[in-house]
Amino acid sequence: MLIQFPSSGVSGSPSHVPSSHSQDEPRSPYRNCFKTMGKNVAADLLRYGKSKSGVISLAQGEGTLPTPSFICEAVTKSLSEGKTFYSAGAGLTELREEIAAYHQRVYGTDISLNRITVTSSGTNAVHLALLSILEEGDDVVAVTPIWKNLIGITELAGGHIHEIPMELQNGQWTLDLERLFAACTPKTRAIMIVSPNNPTGWVMGLDDIRKVMDFARVRGLWVIADEVYGRTTHHMERAPSFLDVAYPEDRLYVVNSFSKTWAMTGWRLGWLIGPPDSEDKVRDLVLYENMGPPTFSQHAGIVALREGEGFLVEQKKRWMENQELVRTSLVSLPKVELAHTDSAFYAFFRVVGEEDSFTLARTLIDEAGVSLAPGGAFGKGFNDYLRLCFAASPEVVFEAMRRLEPFLR
Amino acid sequence: MLIQFPSSGVSGSPSHVPSSHSQDEPRSPYRNCFKTMGKNVAADLLRYGKSKSGVISLAQGEGTLPTPSFICEAVTKSLSEGKTFYSAGAGLTELREEIAAYHQRVYGTDISLNRITVTSSGTNAVHLALLSILEEGDDVVAVTPIWKNLIGITELAGGHIHEIPMELQNGQWTLDLERLFAACTPKTRAIMIVSPNNPTGWVMGLDDIRKVMDFARVRGLWVIADEVYGRTTHHMERAPSFLDVAYPEDRLYVVNSFSKTWAMTGWRLGWLIGPPDSEDKVRDLVLYENMGPPTFSQHAGIVALREGEGFLVEQKKRWMENQELVRTSLVSLPKVELAHTDSAFYAFFRVVGEEDSFTLARTLIDEAGVSLAPGGAFGKGFNDYLRLCFAASPEVVFEAMRRLEPFLR
Repeated sequence: MLIQFPSSGVSGSPSHVPSSHSQDEPRSPYRNCFKTMGKNVAADLLRYGKSKSGVISLAQGEGTLPTPSFICEAVTKSLSEGKTFYSAGAGLTELREEIAAYHQRVYGTDISLNRITVTSSGTNAVHLALLSILEEGDDVVAVTPIWKNLIGITELAGGHIHEIPMELQNGQWTLDLERLFAACTPKTRAIMIVSPNNPTGWVMGLDDIRKVMDFARVRGLWVIADEVYGRTTHHMERAPSFLDVAYPEDRLYVVNSFSKTWAMTGWRLGWLIGPPDSEDKVRDLVLYENMGPPTFSQHAGIVALREGEGFLVEQKKRWMENQELVRTSLVSLPKVELAHTDSAFYAFFRVVGEEDSFTLARTLIDEAGVSLAPGGAFGKGFNDYLRLCFAASPEVVFEAMRRLEPFLR
Repeated sequence: MLIQFPSSGVSGSPSHVPSSHSQDEPRSPYRNCFKTMGKNVAADLLRYGKSKSGVISLAQGEGTLPTPSFICEAVTKSLSEGKTFYSAGAGLTELREEIAAYHQRVYGTDISLNRITVTSSGTNAVHLALLSILEEGDDVVAVTPIWKNLIGITELAGGHIHEIPMELQNGQWTLDLERLFAACTPKTRAIMIVSPNNPTGWVMGLDDIRKVMDFARVRGLWVIADEVYGRTTHHMERAPSFLDVAYPEDRLYVVNSFSKTWAMTGWRLGWLIGPPDSEDKVRDLVLYENMGPPTFSQHAGIVALREGEGFLVEQKKRWMENQELVRTSLVSLPKVELAHTDSAFYAFFRVVGEEDSFTLARTLIDEAGVSLAPGGAFGKGFNDYLRLCFAASPEVVFEAMRRLEPFLR
C-alpha cells in the first residue's frame, strides 16, 4: 500500500516538522495553560534541597516517623489474601463505610455512603472537587496563605485564584470575613478554605464557618473546605468542620486525607465528601483519571481509621514538644515574628526586612544546610515569611534550629 | 460582627437557593462536560454484574491470579524499611532507572530518564498525556474498537474522538491506514492507537507503526500509543512498539502499565514515556493531581520489572490454554463470529443478528449468570459484539462458557 501524505513534498525528518494547524502561527506542542500556570518555584527548591547531601529538609509537610506498623501490617495481610484486584471507582464499599463510621464517631455527623469518594490523596480530592465544578475562567476566592499546589490545582482546572490574605494581628492570624464576602463576584464559583490552616495553624471558628456556609448558600457558591489538618489540633480532639453546619445537599466539598493524621504521606490516600448528586460526577472523574487508590492501601485505610487514635495522640505529643522547641528558638531572634497557634505542625514566621523568601530559602539550603518552604509560595504578601515543618524527630528539629539561628538573627 | 449579605432579603434556607451567576438562566452546580460526556453504561453494567451473587464476571480486564508473592513481598519489605514518605512528582528515580533498564533489555531502546514519568496506572498515563496537549475542541483520531474509558478520558480533557473502526476481514482484524490518515484534519491534535489492541488482540505491524509515526511527524500531530498489552503477545517476547521507530523528540507518548504483565490491576501503577520537553509539564500535572503512586508500590514495581519474566511466561501459558477453550466453545456456535488473534486475553466476538450489546450483556448477567463487556462500549459499529476476558482460571472460564453457550446459539 502506498500512503499519500496530504502535505507531500515535506521531508519526514524531525528537523523539518511543519505545523499544519495554522500556516501563520505554529501551535505549541503543549497546552497553553503551561504558559500561564504559575511556576512552582517551591517545588524546585524542595527538589534542590533534597538533592544536596547533609541538608535537613523541614520544607515538606511530613515528619520522620514512618507509618505505624499496625497500618503497614494491614497491607501485608491484604496482599497475602490476594487483595490485588481492581477496586471500585468510588472506592471500596468497606472503606467508605468505615469513613462514615469515623465521621459518626469523631464528628458526630451522619454521612451517607453516596457522599463519600475514596481518593488518591487529599490533593487528589481537591483536584476532583474543583474539576467537577470549574469552567475556564471561573474565580475561586481563597483564604491565604495557602499551599502553592492548591493554586496550581485551581489553575489546572481553568480557574483563577482570588487571594484573601489573613493578617497577623496581636500575635494571632485573623481573617476578615467581610473582605472575603466582598471579594465574591458573579464570576466567583467557589470559596476555598484550609482550616486548620497550612501554613499558619489558624483554625476557623464554628461561628465563622456557619457564616461562610450561609453566605455561600445564599449566593449559590461552592465551598471547598480542605480539612486534612482537622485532627492536628493540639488541645482539641478535632477542629470545627463545615460538616458541623452544612446540609447534605449544600454545595460543599470537604477534603480529608490519611497523610497527616496517621503519618501516611507516601500512601496517597484520602477522601472527599460532597453532596449526594456529586457521586456519579466524581466517580466518572476518578474512572477517567486513575481508577482510585490501590486496593490493598484502602484495606489498610480501614485499619488506620479504626485503630489509629493512639498513634495520633503520640504524634500530637511530639508536635507540641517540637513546637515549644521551635518557639523558644525563634522568639529569641529579634528579626523573627511568629504567631501563637495550636494546630498543625508548622511554624510560619516572618523575617522582618526580608523581601525575597525564595532567595532566602535557597541561601538557607546552601549556607545553613536547612531546607524550608518560602513564604512567597503561599500567596501574595507572604514573601517575607518562611514555613518550617516541625513534625520531624526532636533531635532533627533541634539541630535544624541550631543551624538556622545564626542566619535569622 | 454583622455580616451583610449582598443578596439581602433572600432566605438562607437550602430550599430557596437562588443562583446569582445569571438572573435568567441558573447555572448547573456541576461542569457542563458532565452533560455531554458519554454515559459509561459499561461501567454501570460492570457494577451491576458484580452486585449479583453467583455471577461470573469476565467483563473486566483482569484474571483470577493475584499478584505473585515476590512482588507483594517487596511491599512488605519497603514498608518495614519505613518507605512511607512522599515520593517525587515524576516518580522515584530508582524506579525510573529500572524502567529505562527494562526498555533497554526488552525493547533494545535507550530511554533517557527525563522522558519517563511513573504514573498511577496506564489509565492515568493516557490521562496525563492527553491533558498535557488537548485544548477544548481538539480532535483525537482513534482506532476503534477502543476501551470506553479512553473515550471518556479524551472527552474529560475537552477533546472529541473521531473513530476509525477496524474491520473484520477473512477472520483478521484489519486497519485501513489511508482511512486513518484521511480522517486527520486541521482540528486533529493526536492519533490514538492501542496495540496490542483491547479488545480485538490485533497487533499493529512495524511497517504500519513507521507509516503512522512518519505521517504524524510531517503533520505535526501527536501519537498516543497505548502499549499496556505490549508483553501479552502469546508467541513473541513483545509486540512492535512506536519506540522502535521514533526519535526521542517526536510528539509521541507511549503508555505502559504493570497491571496486565504482572497481574497488578489493583495497584494502579504504570509509566509514561514522552519527549524530553514533556517532563516538566507532566510532572506539574502529577503534582496537581495526586503526586504520583505510593512510594512502597514504586519499590515493588522495581522488583516486578527486574524479576517478573518467569511469571509472565506462566501467564501466557494460561492465556493460550484459555483462549483455546473459549475458541472451541465459540466456533461451535453458528451465530458467533470470532477473529484469530494471538495477543492479550480477550475474545471479542460478534453475535450475528444482535443489535444491542448492552441489553444482551444485561440479559447474560441476569439469565446466564455471566458478566461480559458490551461491544457497544468500544465505539460505534460494535454493538453486535461482546468482549469476554479469558484471563481467569481455566475452571472459571470453562464454567462461564458452559453457562453462555445456550444463550449464544
